Amino acid sequence: MKLVLAVIQDADASALIRVLSQNAFEVTKLASTGGFLREGNTTLMIGVDDDRLADLKRHVQQTCRARTRLVASSLPAGEQAEAVASDPVEVPVGGAVMFVMQVAEFVKV
Amino acid sequence: MKLVLAVIQDADASALIRVLSQNAFEVTKLASTGGFLREGNTTLMIGVDDDRLADLKRHVQQTCRARTRLVASSLPAGEQAEAVASDPVEVPVGGAVMFVMQVAEFVKV
Amino acid sequence: MKLVLAVIQDADASALIRVLSQNAFEVTKLASTGGFLREGNTTLMIGVDDDRLADLKRHVQQTCRARTRLVASSLPAGEQAEAVASDPVEVPVGGAVMFVMQVAEFVKV
Ligand code: NI
Ligand code: NI
Ligand code: NI
Repeated sequence: MKLVLAVIQDADASALIRVLSQNAFEVTKLASTGGFLREGNTTLMIGVDDDRLADLKRHVQQTCRARTRLVASSLPAGEQAEAVASDPVEVPVGGAVMFVMQVAEFVKV
Repeated sequence: MKLVLAVIQDADASALIRVLSQNAFEVTKLASTGGFLREGNTTLMIGVDDDRLADLKRHVQQTCRARTRLVASSLPAGEQAEAVASDPVEVPVGGAVMFVMQVAEFVKV
Repeated sequence: MKLVLAVIQDADASALIRVLSQNAFEVTKLASTGGFLREGNTTLMIGVDDDRLADLKRHVQQTCRARTRLVASSLPAGEQAEAVASDPVEVPVGGAVMFVMQVAEFVKV
């Protein structure tokens, strides 16, 4: 058995928890801030049998893959030329890191 | 040395932290939600020497064992027949999971 | 690669996170309470390559070393003799524990 500590973006947390629960993974959410992926991240703790680790990784990759999103540009009003005021800009979102550790013993009470 | 990550119910947390502290275990409480045992759980991080692991597990089992509790039934008012309105129902409480991991190195500053 | 779970005092957290970030360590802060070092502590999760573990430990030791601080004495007003009212007292601060664990696999999405 492995214990996976996954650090993901807050914005991806509810989607990932939903898809993992639908696939019968047991997920515990730990509050976290800062560090990996900067502000606004969530740490998930997931116990997983070795033969399901690849499937877990695939779900995290599909849900949290690094990608860009178009958002309205937010230049300070003074610097914002009329011509570019509504031009959207691409910002990076998503991304995840996973630490996979061997579980010496798993106990269920 | 081992590091134990224990996920228990919020309702059992203060009793378990008290009994572990009385038995000279060092416990750190991490905020957590959802997942194992559904909503309202607490994750404890406990460093333990190998020769005390069995005692730690015994304390968790005694304090957090899965059990039932009688609670007043809470059917929606419309569906609640007069005859059963005050019949208590058994709900499951307690339970815990523990991930035990090998500590490669322990440092105290 | 190693995963380090470091439990430090809240009072040392922002200084340590700053120095670790300046030294290119990736730090995730988990909320925590009680246990090691009593109330008011913070748990940091840090992934680190084996060849940088010694440097990480040195930074934690320098920033969080156990030390004393002089604080104004805070005897209850009734018991506070005029002569000692402003005598500062030494209180212990700082200290840290680090659990270092082997990472079986590290995944970056
Ligand atoms: Ni699947
Ligand atoms: Ni005992
Ligand atoms: Ni350095």
